[in-house]
Amino acid sequence: MSTSTPSHPGVVGSGVVAAVDIGGTRIKAALVDRSYGVLAQTTTPTPSDIGADIGSAVAATVKALLGSVPPEQAAHLVGCGVVVPGLVDEAQGVGLYSANLGWRDLDIRAQVESYLHLPAVVGHDVRAGLLAESRLGAAQGHRQVLFMPLGTGIAGALLLDGHVVSGDGWAGELGHVVVDPSGPSCPCGQRGCLEVIASAGAIERIYRAQSHVALSAEDISVRAAAGEDLASSVWGHAVRALGQAIVMTVTLTGVDLVLVGGGLSQSGEVLLTPLRDDVAGRLTFQRPPTIQRAGLGDRAGSLGAACLIWDAL
Amino acid sequence: MSTSTPSHPGVVGSGVVAAVDIGGTRIKAALVDRSYGVLAQTTTPTPSDIGADIGSAVAATVKALLGSVPPEQAAHLVGCGVVVPGLVDEAQGVGLYSANLGWRDLDIRAQVESYLHLPAVVGHDVRAGLLAESRLGAAQGHRQVLFMPLGTGIAGALLLDGHVVSGDGWAGELGHVVVDPSGPSCPCGQRGCLEVIASAGAIERIYRAQSHVALSAEDISVRAAAGEDLASSVWGHAVRALGQAIVMTVTLTGVDLVLVGGGLSQSGEVLLTPLRDDVAGRLTFQRPPTIQRAGLGDRAGSLGAACLIWDAL
Repeated sequence: MSTSTPSHPGVVGSGVVAAVDIGGTRIKAALVDRSYGVLAQTTTPTPSDIGADIGSAVAATVKALLGSVPPEQAAHLVGCGVVVPGLVDEAQGVGLYSANLGWRDLDIRAQVESYLHLPAVVGHDVRAGLLAESRLGAAQGHRQVLFMPLGTGIAGALLLDGHVVSGDGWAGELGHVVVDPSGPSCPCGQRGCLEVIASAGAIERIYRAQSHVALSAEDISVRAAAGEDLASSVWGHAVRALGQAIVMTVTLTGVDLVLVGGGLSQSGEVLLTPLRDDVAGRLTFQRPPTIQRAGLGDRAGSLGAACLIWDAL
Repeated sequence: MSTSTPSHPGVVGSGVVAAVDIGGTRIKAALVDRSYGVLAQTTTPTPSDIGADIGSAVAATVKALLGSVPPEQAAHLVGCGVVVPGLVDEAQGVGLYSANLGWRDLDIRAQVESYLHLPAVVGHDVRAGLLAESRLGAAQGHRQVLFMPLGTGIAGALLLDGHVVSGDGWAGELGHVVVDPSGPSCPCGQRGCLEVIASAGAIERIYRAQSHVALSAEDISVRAAAGEDLASSVWGHAVRALGQAIVMTVTLTGVDLVLVGGGLSQSGEVLLTPLRDDVAGRLTFQRPPTIQRAGLGDRAGSLGAACLIWDAL
């Protein structure tokens, strides 16, 4: 590898990777060096037709990143990690299915490689986020972790015995664990999924249906903390459903750290304190987990993409 | 290694291991060669005070095994695998806790090694059983498996991404996943655990409470198959609880093979057919698992112990 620019020995000596997290609404991307230093980052709207030409969308993002750093750094791009939601075949680099992004069997790795002429890897956004949390964030030193981003929906990823579980791409659908068989219908076809009771989207929907007032989940959490009856009731219902799903996961897998991420985690202790109390009240013989906020915020996915491509190179 | 007895080249060339499965009522043990051929096996009652001197109990079992094979095989014992129920620290070889066998923090490996003067390893009976099923039994070639022995209680073990999950010894407590929060009390302190609804013990207890007739779970299954109302109702209730727990596990972990073991699995299709129907009726977007009987019967634990000690040697 060239080391022709001694003024940036760290970067140039080992190169940089592009790390791209493609979400339903935004693409978050970063240039990341071998020590996981972020040299540049960018957030852009996700093109509505991204499935039609994902290679060109990723290439445009990478080009924007490279344009924001000195040319001697840009010249040493060595690979690209891409993470996406939905069902992902990580070994083949294929996006099997994303309801949000509207694709099936999309050969993401081949398309990205054909545009960039560099090695690429493809991962799942939440599993990659957990990998980043375990290497760089709040799960460092832990081997049994549930990562639970709570946003419009609810996702999940498991680190068990130090390994992020893929389940051939099927693992971690915590949002679709049934917590109340007589609960509301879920678009997935089941009833009472965690996601239709305890996601930010569900909290907003349930509050609005009962009050005819449209508030964000964060505003509802503030009202709950202030003692408003309806807000407290909706919030408490969500907390109990989350507690139930956490205890179930602890019982089945032995996780001892639960990292709460996503928009709902911004409510901080208004969420975490009652959630810890609820979980403590349910556990009997199981090992009690530590429940805390994730550490990397909305950069977990792109840092996870960086972990994946550095591991592959 | 000596190969002085050419009439038994396979065995003598690589030695044999003792594989000991210590259960609540019986110790099942075998002498197993490098190709997992069983040269001898034995079943003895578990001494009631086994926790007081587990080394001598294992040594007596091993001596009985060695006495039943030709001296040139007995001379080539190279190690001992021991599996036990409860909470096990596999790395340290310590039985952390067993309610059934009445021990805490029992240094099983050290005690067995001090009697046998050979390397020993200690594992968890159900996780070792799953390892054996994956290497020698019904899970061969599978990477995402739930192993679910249904007996007096309900245990569980997970093979995820080809790896048996330990969770620091805490993984797999499927019997204590809550399937009905308003269900009967469980000795663990929770309500509505799978084990108090769907184990063989629970089925017998519930049937007896309603009929004042004491029947085995197998007899109840025969009556259910014959259409008896009460038996059908109790059996159906158990099947639905098992279906709920399986779907929850599939959703969370992505397993695509469920192996049913233990005494209840002897009911065969009387259990498996309605269970497959129940699971199929619950799944929406998830990958449907194959549900079938485990392959190794009550020898899964001891064969798993053999896998563990051969892997360690």
